[in-house]
Order: sequence, then structure tokens, then C-alpha cells
Amino acid sequence: MTTDELYPAGRLDQVREAAGAAGLDAVLLTPGPDLRYVIGYDAKQLERLTCLAVPAHPDPAHPDPALFVPRLELAAARASAAGALTLEMIPWEETDDPFALVAARLGAVSAVGLSDRMWALSVLKFRDALPGARLALAGGALRTLRIRKTPAEVAALREAGAAIDRVHARVPGWLRPGLTERAVGSLITEAILAEGHATVDFVIVGSGPNAASPHHEVSDRVLAAGDVVVVDIGGTMPSGYCSDSTRTYALGAPPAEFTAYYQVLRDAQEAACAAVRPGVTAESVDAAAREPITRAGFGEAFFHRTGHGIGLEAHEDPYIVAGNREPLEPGMAFSVEPGIYPGPHGARIEDIVVCTEDGYERLNHAPRELVIVG
Amino acid sequence: MTTDELYPAGRLDQVREAAGAAGLDAVLLTPGPDLRYVIGYDAKQLERLTCLAVPAHPDPAHPDPALFVPRLELAAARASAAGALTLEMIPWEETDDPFALVAARLGAVSAVGLSDRMWALSVLKFRDALPGARLALAGGALRTLRIRKTPAEVAALREAGAAIDRVHARVPGWLRPGLTERAVGSLITEAILAEGHATVDFVIVGSGPNAASPHHEVSDRVLAAGDVVVVDIGGTMPSGYCSDSTRTYALGAPPAEFTAYYQVLRDAQEAACAAVRPGVTAESVDAAAREPITRAGFGEAFFHRTGHGIGLEAHEDPYIVAGNREPLEPGMAFSVEPGIYPGPHGARIEDIVVCTEDGYERLNHAPRELVIVG
Repeated sequence: MTTDELYPAGRLDQVREAAGAAGLDAVLLTPGPDLRYVIGYDAKQLERLTCLAVPAHPDPAHPDPALFVPRLELAAARASAAGALTLEMIPWEETDDPFALVAARLGAVSAVGLSDRMWALSVLKFRDALPGARLALAGGALRTLRIRKTPAEVAALREAGAAIDRVHARVPGWLRPGLTERAVGSLITEAILAEGHATVDFVIVGSGPNAASPHHEVSDRVLAAGDVVVVDIGGTMPSGYCSDSTRTYALGAPPAEFTAYYQVLRDAQEAACAAVRPGVTAESVDAAAREPITRAGFGEAFFHRTGHGIGLEAHEDPYIVAGNREPLEPGMAFSVEPGIYPGPHGARIEDIVVCTEDGYERLNHAPRELVIVG
Repeated sequence: MTTDELYPAGRLDQVREAAGAAGLDAVLLTPGPDLRYVIGYDAKQLERLTCLAVPAHPDPAHPDPALFVPRLELAAARASAAGALTLEMIPWEETDDPFALVAARLGAVSAVGLSDRMWALSVLKFRDALPGARLALAGGALRTLRIRKTPAEVAALREAGAAIDRVHARVPGWLRPGLTERAVGSLITEAILAEGHATVDFVIVGSGPNAASPHHEVSDRVLAAGDVVVVDIGGTMPSGYCSDSTRTYALGAPPAEFTAYYQVLRDAQEAACAAVRPGVTAESVDAAAREPITRAGFGEAFFHRTGHGIGLEAHEDPYIVAGNREPLEPGMAFSVEPGIYPGPHGARIEDIVVCTEDGYERLNHAPRELVIVG
């Protein structure tokens, strides 16, 4: 997919419509996934304000959108995909008050949406610069767009999935007794970059008892024969789209009770994927994963949701969790990652899955059978 | 320095005092540099709330501090430096409302400080969960502590400076005509990690006309003989402390007008460093850099501030900028990085400098003379 396909020019108008439909007079987007989604500008959030101001509905009552940038970021903004859009860029100087500039541009507004990841530093300054406005999250308006991936976005996620699969293909070669989790993590970090990611988002190498801690990262624990190792890794591609995949490895023959519940987990992950199709609720996919695990007596040992959406963020809507009755739609992309953590070991299997017109497509293809190393 | 020295147990009490002195009833810190500073827990900011609630003044009117963590992060929180503190950790379940839990813990509060980098996602939820409270930035209270580095923090910054100096020592070997900025950037990225950083924060390789764009990152521009190349790079060490250093390189003999203004820049950077001592204002260091550049007729071509503080953040207080009349104090650490960008080339020299009892210490020692490669 090209930059044009990933970040089409019409998106700014879609956002204006979505903001109006959400009852907002404008949305204000600071650097982060929302800004990148709307205009393709991958800027860093820093103490100097960069802010895309998008008034609702393109009509004479509202000014045109504008990107406020620190003067020394102007060249970078113009060089980004945003430079190809019909979008006014307004540089501000070191001694200006950029919040006042944005407020003046917006004029009278009664409800303004802020990007979900905007720092409190900016949120409270906009609160003071827009005293009459109710502040809400822009995410409510943007999620209706971002949650359904276009074919170009699915292609970008597929490319990310293939890249992280190539890393998993190399992992068994690095799991040797005597190495620390941290040393294995360093090799994986290098490989995530070498296989085409622009950044490394997380590297979890949970060995032995650490395999039972789902968000353990790496430690100085030394791998030993008989260990089970959960490897959950992901990064962001140059396209901006993320990868995220987990496989569980065993250093030599694992304990018999582990082998038994690993098969339960394998069946649960399969059942959850198979449940994905348009119209099915997010929570029913969670239930499909949970049911076989609970039936086998491991319900208490599966204490996190089944998955999270993925796109320009590693975690975004839709969340695959009890209580989320949102029906799945074609283009929704999310992880399916049940886990069983009874201690003193644990296991998780995670693939990214896209809801298609009549079912699902997995974007990860590394073997899901337990990989026994050495 | 050890973890105990970097993140001493007494810091939580200092924060309680500082919060009270700032007129706050409590501060709420989500993952980021403030949280890491206070309890040594390097957590990721994610959609699930992790929040340290620190009521002001340790007296019977206020509850004890508590760390609210998603249940699946509890093991990681306990394994961090925070696990060694006397600090209650309160795990919340997937179906709990963690904002309500924090509000209930705080009880009646009229002013609450939020960490500067807290996401709007959480800011607006705390606004709704604490309807009677005025929300402010916790940074106002924390900056009084964070802005003066302890000897252990200075040691950590010194270690970071040495690591990035080792990267700069290798840069001349990679600047060859025919390579793209992006290719050079990839080699630098690998070296930043190989030389001891935990993460890469930014890699700017601005060649030819891109040298005149201070926040350019990397592009597909191919390096050519006669180019000037600005290389501004930094990362975060395992300690949490950041590096940031810029050097300007020339591929073969540069244009004569460049050589002339490079010498002006060199003098300006030296003069600004020499101006650093306790009691001098931040803006007077900026003025010391600006004066020789303006005198030589390049005032318009130096259009950014002279520097920014550095510590657990790559950019933090104090900012070395016109208008900042804050007097420097021993332990303040910041960049001194004047630049001259007249186009079609430009230059910048940047060192991290610490204000000492009677002057300053530079933390970067790569040669500041123009390095001519090839």
C-alpha cells in the first residue's frame, strides 16, 4: 500500500463529519495515532504544542482545518504526508502562546474533542484557553472511522504480522539454558528492527515462574532446562501499523500438567478465532475463548480479556472483553490471545485477526503447536 | 549508582510535602517520568489505568499513598523498585472502574494535581470522578524536586553522556557519499542500543539542505561529497536517564561561508557553557549563546531556544530560553545547543551541561571542532 492509500486526502472531511455527528464543534489533535490517522503526520508529542484543529462540518460557519506547529517543526510537517493535503500550516514562534492561537482560530465553541492521548499539560491549557467549552474525547468521533480498517490498512497490518512472524521463526534458536531473559530480549529487539519494524514496542520473555505473569517484560532470570517461556512481542512498521504476537516455547519436555492445559489453551484460541464474523459481539468472542478454559477447570487462571484492537496503536478499539456488546464489522482487527496462568508456569497464544465479510482472516501464521526447543 | 540511590525511599514523603506546599490535596501520577521519579516504577502508559495516588502531607487527615494497578500488572509493579517501598498496591479487575476506586480512596478533595503526561483519556475520567476538585498539573509540585538532580542522578546522566559520546565517535565511519540519511540513521540506531541505551529516543541525520531544518529526522536523501551533516541523537539508559548530543560533520571540505559561521557557532556554544553558574538566570545563558551569533549577523538564522533540561525526560525543566528568569542552581542539567541555519546548510553543537556549586560540568566530550570526513 502507498502513503496515499493509507492516509487518503478525504479523511479530513470524514473527521469533520464525524465530529459534527458526535455533537462537537471541533476536534483538537496533538501528535499521536489520531493525528497520524487523519493527516499522515507522524510527529512526536513534546512540550511544544503541535495541534491539528479540525472544526466540524465544512460549512461557512466554521473555519477551515489548520495545523499549528512550532516553527522549527514546520519543515518536517511539510515533508510528511500532510504536506500533500490542502491544509493550512500555521507556525508559531518560541515566545507565542499557541493555545491562545488555536482558541482564536476556533472562535466561539461549546464542545471540543481532544485526542485521547493528549497530555494533561495541553488538556489543562486548552481548558483555560477555551473557558466556555465542554471538553470531551475526540476518540468518540474518531473511533467510528478508525475501528474499521480499509483494505490498505489491513494490508499494512498483514505486512506487520508477517514481519513479527519472521521474528518468532528465529526465537527457538535463541532459547538456550544459561541465557538470561534480558539477553534473549536483546536479540529479539534487534530482530524486530531487522525484520522491518521502525520501532520496538514491547518484548516480553517470561520464563519459568515469570511465564505466569502476563505483563512481565524481561528480567535477569537465567533460562533453565524444563522452563516454559512465553514470548509476546510487537513493534510498529514504517507504515505506522503495529504487530503483536505471542507464542509459548518449552526448553525440553515440559511438565505433564502443562502439556494438558496447553492443549486446552490451543483449543480455546482456535474456538475464539472461529467465532469471529460480522454481527457477532466482541464479548461473545471473549466467551468463546473462556468457555473451554473454564470447562477444563482453569477459569480462574485466565484473568485477562481475550484481546484488543490493533492498528496505529498496539491497543485500541475494539476490546474483546466481557461487557462489550458491540457487534463486529468487516475490517475490525484485534488480537485473540487467551492465556492460562496457574503457576508456577503459564502459557498464552496470540494472533491478530481481521473480521472479513463472512468470517475472519488470521494475520499471524507461526506454528501454534507447542514448540519444544533443544 | 544503584537503584536505591536513584530512587530513594524518602522521595514519596518529599512529594507529599511538595504537593501540600503547592496547595494540592493529592497528586495522581500515571506511567511516565513523574511516576518513575517518585517510586522507580517504569510502567507503560496504556488504556488500562495505572495510577499512584499521593495524598498531601502525611497526617491523619489524609490516607496513605497507594498504587492502583491492573491486576495483570501487579507482578511487574512488585518486581520494580516500587516493590521495595512501604507502599500499598491495589490491583483492579477487568470489570472494575479504576477511576471510581481512586476517587473513593482520596475522599473529599478540592485540588488535585495530575502528572503532566497523563493522557486526556484519564484526565477527563478523573474530572468526572472528582466533580468537586479543581484539576491542576502535578508538575508544578514535582518540578521543585526533579529540577535539581541528586549526585546519583548526575552520575546517571554522566553515564548517558559517555554512551552517546561513544556513538558519535563511530559516526564519521558511517558518513559516506552514496548512503541515504535513513541508512546512516539505522546504523546509529543500532549503535545507540549497542553502546548501552535501553531505547532510542531520536535520530536526526540532516544532510545538505536538511541540515538547515533543526527537527528534520532522516530521509531518503543520498549523502554527497561537500555535504554538511547535522547528527543529533539520544536515547534512554536502563537507569531511566536520557542522553542528547549533536555534532556537525562535513563530507570533504565545506563551503567557505559555512566554515566561517561554524566558528561563530563554536564560540557561541563555548560562551553559553561558560555563562553557567549558580544564580545566573536561564535566559542569560540563552543570551550568552545568542549575542555572538547576532553580532556576526546570523541572529535570524538561530531561531530556537538555546536548550532544555534533561533527566528522566529528554526535554524537561529548566528551559534555556528568553523569558525564563529562573536562577540556575547546582544540580540543574540541561542542553546547550545553539544552531545557525542560514540555508542551504546549517550547523548545531550540543552538549549536556550540569550547573555545579561554582560553575558547570559538561557531560559530553566528543570533539566540538568541525569533523571533516573523507
